[in-house]
Amino acid sequence: MVGGGQLARMTAQAAVGLGIGFRVLATAPDESAALACAGTQIGDHRSFADLTAFASGCDVVTFDHEHVPGPHLSALEQAGVKVRPGPDALRYAQDKRGMRERLAGLGVACPRFTTAACLDDVTSFAEGFGWPVVLKAVSGGYDGKGIWVCGTPDQAAEVLAHGLGLIVEEHVAFDRELAVLVARSPSGQAAAYPVVQTIQRDGICREVLAPAPGLGEATAVAAQRLGLAIAAGIGVTGMLAVELFQTPGGLLVNELAMRPHNSGHWTIEGARTSQFEQHLRAVLDLPLGAPMLAARHAVMVNILGGDDPDLHSRLLHVMAADPGVKVHLYGKAVRPGRKVGHVTALGDDIEVLRARARRAASYLSCGTEQQ
Amino acid sequence: MVGGGQLARMTAQAAVGLGIGFRVLATAPDESAALACAGTQIGDHRSFADLTAFASGCDVVTFDHEHVPGPHLSALEQAGVKVRPGPDALRYAQDKRGMRERLAGLGVACPRFTTAACLDDVTSFAEGFGWPVVLKAVSGGYDGKGIWVCGTPDQAAEVLAHGLGLIVEEHVAFDRELAVLVARSPSGQAAAYPVVQTIQRDGICREVLAPAPGLGEATAVAAQRLGLAIAAGIGVTGMLAVELFQTPGGLLVNELAMRPHNSGHWTIEGARTSQFEQHLRAVLDLPLGAPMLAARHAVMVNILGGDDPDLHSRLLHVMAADPGVKVHLYGKAVRPGRKVGHVTALGDDIEVLRARARRAASYLSCGTEQQ
Repeated sequence: MVGGGQLARMTAQAAVGLGIGFRVLATAPDESAALACAGTQIGDHRSFADLTAFASGCDVVTFDHEHVPGPHLSALEQAGVKVRPGPDALRYAQDKRGMRERLAGLGVACPRFTTAACLDDVTSFAEGFGWPVVLKAVSGGYDGKGIWVCGTPDQAAEVLAHGLGLIVEEHVAFDRELAVLVARSPSGQAAAYPVVQTIQRDGICREVLAPAPGLGEATAVAAQRLGLAIAAGIGVTGMLAVELFQTPGGLLVNELAMRPHNSGHWTIEGARTSQFEQHLRAVLDLPLGAPMLAARHAVMVNILGGDDPDLHSRLLHVMAADPGVKVHLYGKAVRPGRKVGHVTALGDDIEVLRARARRAASYLSCGTEQQ
Repeated sequence: MVGGGQLARMTAQAAVGLGIGFRVLATAPDESAALACAGTQIGDHRSFADLTAFASGCDVVTFDHEHVPGPHLSALEQAGVKVRPGPDALRYAQDKRGMRERLAGLGVACPRFTTAACLDDVTSFAEGFGWPVVLKAVSGGYDGKGIWVCGTPDQAAEVLAHGLGLIVEEHVAFDRELAVLVARSPSGQAAAYPVVQTIQRDGICREVLAPAPGLGEATAVAAQRLGLAIAAGIGVTGMLAVELFQTPGGLLVNELAMRPHNSGHWTIEGARTSQFEQHLRAVLDLPLGAPMLAARHAVMVNILGGDDPDLHSRLLHVMAADPGVKVHLYGKAVRPGRKVGHVTALGDDIEVLRARARRAASYLSCGTEQQ
């Protein structure tokens, strides 16, 4: 797995159970996955030499992020390396404009958008669809970075001044955000997880409720079908996360990620097969595991770094206060707002689970019970 | 953790989630845990120099086996190393005679026994309690090794000829075998897992049923109390596994192990807190996790090596045949009869789960569905 973040770390954990040799290409020996994985190579994912050296010992190469340059991916594939997902699919995770165009080609409903090369593009778009509009960097964004909600032409001009490749999108008045995770293997087997609700703040996923409370079965099935159709349509191998807006007019696709995803961390304990094991099964073309829930409800809350870097002493209190929540720490240095871990709670009463998981995550973040 | 076997491997997996720095002292780089763990030191657990070097980087030292010499453990402790469980407790896992005597001192019922220094000791014992008798090596046995059921004086003489330290024990006509796992921390917090039934063949654990089917609540509570009393009585820190005979006259203690144990592998998916995480919490004096079941029933079946070393191609079939069973492989070379992995199935119908787990394990062992 190229990339040494928490997604690679949790994939390494899943590889242990499968008895699979697992290595990461990390940028530093103290990266999250490098701390937890026997086979770490230090290198730069933007260097073709480092990628080639890494790939030479691997049956399959996969990724914990979207930042490997597309030409490198194609060259690796040309050289006979099994790159999963392949460059033809991954480009849609790297290029939001290309992704939107491809989804439109597949007949998938998305927010309306156009290229935003200059302020005129933005103001003309806003004349049609109203302010505010959303400006998005075509590539490189994550966790709310690379996304700007602009209420006025002046705000848009400020974003345009960065000189990034941008698209402008309608600001969707959604009821809530959902996500559907599907896995697809090279031989075409696919599996869809239960649809979840995600709750973001400041563009960062804070909370995931599995399954999405009160979601009608027809909508749930539609979301799963949508995920499976996109995975097949663009030829994804491995996990695909589809972030959705639920609106009065139906589901709109917001973002795609072709890897294990924050909206699936609950699956470690909450599903029969975790998204990390499923990703490995899929990219290795092993038969997929059952994606069904392992409890009535699962709630995941992210732990964001606070001002005090000493997570450990707070961990004692959280463990003592609630022996039933499951804390996952990523071994990352604490910085304010950085995802440093997550908490999962499983059980029968969703409101009780939310309260428990929030309390634990909040206490780990900042030593208080408010978040 | 001293020892690089599958118990250390699965403990390493639990350490990832806790964000704990975890290292193993393994005898070779291809040992089960060394393959899966970022911090492996190669060394000999019988060498005080190797143990000291290993311990120098650790806050706490714990074990995946009982084979570190007692004097080394005491010397480490004298040197200020936190050794958990400590030598005063671990000696009872190393010395079956001492263990039996200590348990008798605690008022715990065990099979009747005496020292077997010569054939006369055995024949006199058998006059009182009948043939067959059980001869046990005082130290070093595991998985049925170091245990001999002898039906005649000739058979006993053959065992005595090995020149090992032995005890002779009554051959208990038990109804079934049970096990109770408890965790205890240095500050005295303790937690007991649901009592399980274990099914052995040729002295090797083949199957574990959690909770033990049809076990009366009074007996279950008695077994948990027994486990907690033994842990407190001999000052265990970490996991303690108590293997029990259920007999018409009550529960008898058969064996103790002071580490994660085969009878607790089901807890990885089947309990809210796995025995591996619980062992880490306990030896680090972190508050203990909830030991409750995560499903109505959990069944664990060991995968024993067969004649064909190619587990991987058989894994494909097992995954395809049953996407809901959870396979754990240990990365160990396949040798006939060797524990190379296990399968866990969770659900509502114990007989269905047993059939599924057995079928998967059997197929992985030998490519057929009989075991």
